[in-house]
Amino acid sequence: MSTDVNCCHSDEQNAFQDYYADDYSHCYGCGRLNEKGLKLKSFWEGEESVCRILPASHYSGGKKDIIYGGLIASLIDCHGAATAAGAKVRELGICVKKGEMPRFVTASLKVNFLAPTPINTELELRGRVKQINGRKVTIEVDLLAQQTVCAKGELLFIQLKD
Amino acid sequence: MSTDVNCCHSDEQNAFQDYYADDYSHCYGCGRLNEKGLKLKSFWEGEESVCRILPASHYSGGKKDIIYGGLIASLIDCHGAATAAGAKVRELGICVKKGEMPRFVTASLKVNFLAPTPINTELELRGRVKQINGRKVTIEVDLLAQQTVCAKGELLFIQLKD
Repeated sequence: MSTDVNCCHSDEQNAFQDYYADDYSHCYGCGRLNEKGLKLKSFWEGEESVCRILPASHYSGGKKDIIYGGLIASLIDCHGAATAAGAKVRELGICVKKGEMPRFVTASLKVNFLAPTPINTELELRGRVKQINGRKVTIEVDLLAQQTVCAKGELLFIQLKD
Repeated sequence: MSTDVNCCHSDEQNAFQDYYADDYSHCYGCGRLNEKGLKLKSFWEGEESVCRILPASHYSGGKKDIIYGGLIASLIDCHGAATAAGAKVRELGICVKKGEMPRFVTASLKVNFLAPTPINTELELRGRVKQINGRKVTIEVDLLAQQTVCAKGELLFIQLKD
């Protein structure tokens, strides 16, 4: 594994999303160039990918004290896409520099909502690689609040061609 | 079917979401009391439910010219929940006044992304009831842009108890 500090394998200061090319960095969920977006940041923690976020209180569900389902799906989707990219890079064993990160689009998203997700609480997303099959990567993501798994996602991503 | 203009069966001016109780009207996607939210509005059109929205351009995906997947999931989720409520009321054959609309939460959400969803384009969500089984309602939702189906969702909703 490379120890190049500008390589997404080893750089603990920069997230997977920081390695996306500028043209692919406009996502409302995770694009570093989207001024109004959430700017999610995902990192490896051992075999799992992790992202932490404290959503603004206006992302409430029907009731004011919970997060709305659409944001939960969004967080799982964006963190999953980043995990797919990180997993592909790790599988290839290459050093990816900024702008060179492979970019994945979502083919399918499945979310099971297990418990209400509280508002004004830091959320933790934990991703795992289920399968890598060429340009197809399947990722599982758990969303936790205060150590409780509130939602579980499974997503199929397709790597964009250069 | 009632012809009461304040009943959600017959009122063409008010959406399903306008019949939610105040305490359940704070959703970022569809709550009429969420000042920063999208305020989705869903109506019957025959056997299908319909919602139309022109999302702001900052809800872009990685590339600037498409909508991000999280918003697509959000729209499908909120329109689906409204359709579940409308379907339950229609099944019961009752007249629901404002504040009395049954409220459903999402148990599971599945979205297949079929084509990029363009930005700066009015989107149409079309919902269909797949199954009603007591408090469990399964809804299918298509998301269209310029007559192209860009995403298809299937969702299981659970009716909240009073």
